[in-house]
Amino acid sequence: MPAFEKIEYKPISVREILVEMKDISEFMIDLAYSAALFHDKELADEVVHLENRVDTLAYLLDMSAMLATRSPEDAEALVGVSAVASAADKISDAAADIAAIVLRDIRVHPIVREAFEKVEERLGCVKVVSKSVLVGKRLDGLKLEAKIGVNVIAIRRGNNWIINPKPDEIIEDEDFLIVRGAPGGMVDLKGLAEGSLRKLEG
Amino acid sequence: MPAFEKIEYKPISVREILVEMKDISEFMIDLAYSAALFHDKELADEVVHLENRVDTLAYLLDMSAMLATRSPEDAEALVGVSAVASAADKISDAAADIAAIVLRDIRVHPIVREAFEKVEERLGCVKVVSKSVLVGKRLDGLKLEAKIGVNVIAIRRGNNWIINPKPDEIIEDEDFLIVRGAPGGMVDLKGLAEGSLRKLEG
Repeated sequence: MPAFEKIEYKPISVREILVEMKDISEFMIDLAYSAALFHDKELADEVVHLENRVDTLAYLLDMSAMLATRSPEDAEALVGVSAVASAADKISDAAADIAAIVLRDIRVHPIVREAFEKVEERLGCVKVVSKSVLVGKRLDGLKLEAKIGVNVIAIRRGNNWIINPKPDEIIEDEDFLIVRGAPGGMVDLKGLAEGSLRKLEG
Repeated sequence: MPAFEKIEYKPISVREILVEMKDISEFMIDLAYSAALFHDKELADEVVHLENRVDTLAYLLDMSAMLATRSPEDAEALVGVSAVASAADKISDAAADIAAIVLRDIRVHPIVREAFEKVEERLGCVKVVSKSVLVGKRLDGLKLEAKIGVNVIAIRRGNNWIINPKPDEIIEDEDFLIVRGAPGGMVDLKGLAEGSLRKLEG
């Protein structure tokens, strides 16, 4: 469990906060199902981290919304925003519940795993070490999808999350990459990230 | 609000139920956000319908799981399944909360809508009437994506839902089609479904 973050009011727009809450909560669902299906505690830990982030965003959104309210009309307009935010928060809680199953070592029934495997591509999580060839490279320059059939769908950098990173994002030492794709490609990417593989074929 | 369904035990496999709960709950999130962003009460109604379906599935899953439990090992294996199911249920509740905003006529702040519109393609819902040219046609034969840039992502047929319909699915009279795609294509599809348009160009 991460320690509680101290929440300070920062002037972020309500719009930015809501978009981030929505993106993270949807992403958490994918992550949590993958964690359950493959009994992957690293992915489950990431879900718990993200839940913490969504909780922080929920507070920031409430503060920003209150500060932005000057008239009864403002209040009426913002109540819908706050309801959408609280739904995103509930979704992230559900994802955290699934992650908790994994962290408590409760295994998903193999029959169910088989059923899910057919519809899911594998999600995985790799940590980039300083000697990795990935460090300093732009995402699009690596052509990971074409070469090994995997996509980087998020990056965790310290306590920050970059969901759906842009093609020109540059990979840094210590980044956690969340990737979706073929299991074989995932093995190659792990090799690159951990420095045991220096280049890709093809 | 739909009337409560009477729930009778049917011998459906735990696997099938769980996969359906997972698919529906994820689909509901998309549907609910779209309903909120475009203040679309029809989509919001569909979310409420689906929530009812997920509740029914949750009961069926509990019954099937109890019936399948013969030993303490079975119970241990099935407790993970039941936790995943209850998370799917929570996700569907969150989607229904968002739908409730729309049905109570609370509007989402325009600034937020703008922010979401950039990342979302439009979801829409069209009802197929008996005189429509779509009736009796296979989905893949219509080439909707190539011709007008829309995809049928689900079909409601009476109280049954077909999520991610197969290419050989045949459209029936009175089907509700849930489609994702370009707003212009949506207008064309509405014309075809309501019988005011007889054919597509191109």
